[in-house]
Amino acid sequence: MAVMDFTDFNQRLAACASDAEIVLADLLQSEALTGETARPERLISAMRHAVLGGGKRLRPFLVTETAALFGAPRDGAMLAGCALELLHCYSLVHDDLPAMDNDDLRRGKPTVHKAFDEAAAILCGDALLTLAFDVLARTQVHKDANVRIALISALARAAGVGGMAGGQMYDLAAEGRFSKKRALGESEIVTLQAMKTGALLRFACRAGAILGSADNAALDNIERYGAAVGQAFQIADDLLDVEGDPATLGKAAGKDAAAGKATLVAVLGAEGARDQLAQLIADADAALAQFGAKADTLRAAAHFIAERRT
Amino acid sequence: MAVMDFTDFNQRLAACASDAEIVLADLLQSEALTGETARPERLISAMRHAVLGGGKRLRPFLVTETAALFGAPRDGAMLAGCALELLHCYSLVHDDLPAMDNDDLRRGKPTVHKAFDEAAAILCGDALLTLAFDVLARTQVHKDANVRIALISALARAAGVGGMAGGQMYDLAAEGRFSKKRALGESEIVTLQAMKTGALLRFACRAGAILGSADNAALDNIERYGAAVGQAFQIADDLLDVEGDPATLGKAAGKDAAAGKATLVAVLGAEGARDQLAQLIADADAALAQFGAKADTLRAAAHFIAERRT
Repeated sequence: MAVMDFTDFNQRLAACASDAEIVLADLLQSEALTGETARPERLISAMRHAVLGGGKRLRPFLVTETAALFGAPRDGAMLAGCALELLHCYSLVHDDLPAMDNDDLRRGKPTVHKAFDEAAAILCGDALLTLAFDVLARTQVHKDANVRIALISALARAAGVGGMAGGQMYDLAAEGRFSKKRALGESEIVTLQAMKTGALLRFACRAGAILGSADNAALDNIERYGAAVGQAFQIADDLLDVEGDPATLGKAAGKDAAAGKATLVAVLGAEGARDQLAQLIADADAALAQFGAKADTLRAAAHFIAERRT
Repeated sequence: MAVMDFTDFNQRLAACASDAEIVLADLLQSEALTGETARPERLISAMRHAVLGGGKRLRPFLVTETAALFGAPRDGAMLAGCALELLHCYSLVHDDLPAMDNDDLRRGKPTVHKAFDEAAAILCGDALLTLAFDVLARTQVHKDANVRIALISALARAAGVGGMAGGQMYDLAAEGRFSKKRALGESEIVTLQAMKTGALLRFACRAGAILGSADNAALDNIERYGAAVGQAFQIADDLLDVEGDPATLGKAAGKDAAAGKATLVAVLGAEGARDQLAQLIADADAALAQFGAKADTLRAAAHFIAERRT
């Protein structure tokens, strides 16, 4: 299957990140909106610190590229993608807290509780999560309220107790925080990661399909693609934690092993994990077969995600 | 203005709390819903601990009674009210965290981070906040997606950076956490409290009016009522912190003064605060004038909120 040139892909990804930055900065302005009283300087600053000036913006990219596949307008998809990015950033802020993963560095900058304080980081995450739903409810995302409701419902399921937040809880349990540590099997790790990081990446792809009114067959294929990409993302992340360079990563490396995190790299070994990655790219390619050349950017995205070095 | 008999009112409030408990328990069941992978036992238990078995359920009561005023069906209003209650409970869980108000007791039980642990409390709050939007997106709230979108948008504004979360940040700042403590003036305290506790109570009233497709004049009056009731609630709360009995309250008393919290009781004195309360009840009554006897329960609610002892 033909895959887009890597330089073209990287340019497309960078252009999306640049567009997303503008939208995110606008969403995080200091002026209060209708229905708001005032935006406290310290809180909105913490939110900007958490969101702006970093990240590959992979989630907005997946939303806009999937939306493009189904012919949905880019502006609405970008706004939905940025709502998802706000939610993703909230999860990083809370995940970095001392009571959670206790990280000092994120995207090469001090984490929010280091740059501000713990209370600010808690409120910052809460306010980013809330803002994500605020943004998805806006008419500019899509003129049909039923479409916005479908996005809100899918995001809430992906992010909540049965998705990302639940996955974080399984992750802490796997560290042996609440009872004697017990090594997880491969399928338990796959479930944990499908929730912790996979759910939002799957949602990113699904969101584009929802915005483009995809039929059920297409939606199923996009879900398969999203699931493969989500799992590939996590394995690549775990490989980077083992083999990556902290200077390039912008965060500490080797932390997962130190914390005894449950990863497929730990279970399968680096070589086995790389074999798994190759299989997932093949799955992602297969899921996109019905869309032909129109899906070349999404094909390239799967390769990019699996082979990334930061 | 005639006000409903207190016994009748208390029975109506208790009946609402009892109905809300059933809906909330159902929302917090262990089984995963469509779009969820699994609900981790420790996380859903923490969520149940935070939400079930306590509270006057004042917010669901205000939603259902305002909805009744406009002839909206009770079932949808109760579900919307319970979504708001989930969000309210998230705010209590995060507010009680050591880095925030550091409270050990809530509704007569250990707070979530005491009964479980800090990480569980952070994730529990995050998952409750997310679930609130999940619930508001459901068809059972109202058949018209535009109405659900209006509720989601209004709740996000009320709860986010320009509402409740922002008010909590102002509250911490007023304690002198981030710079030298400076006594707030009356109008600053009113703004802080309108955000911190007022915004959700105003939303409760607005939600009922949205569900009942109220016209703009009625919506304005309901907003005025909600604002008066919200302010009265906070003054009553602050008076209870000064004068209340911890055994009845189910939480510690005297903590606000100890923490140097900015309250109107501190600025106006207990007597001045009580005068203010009387004025707010009069405002609430005046705002309800157009609705006649149909609004008697809401009138009684204003008195109940201002005069409560727990």
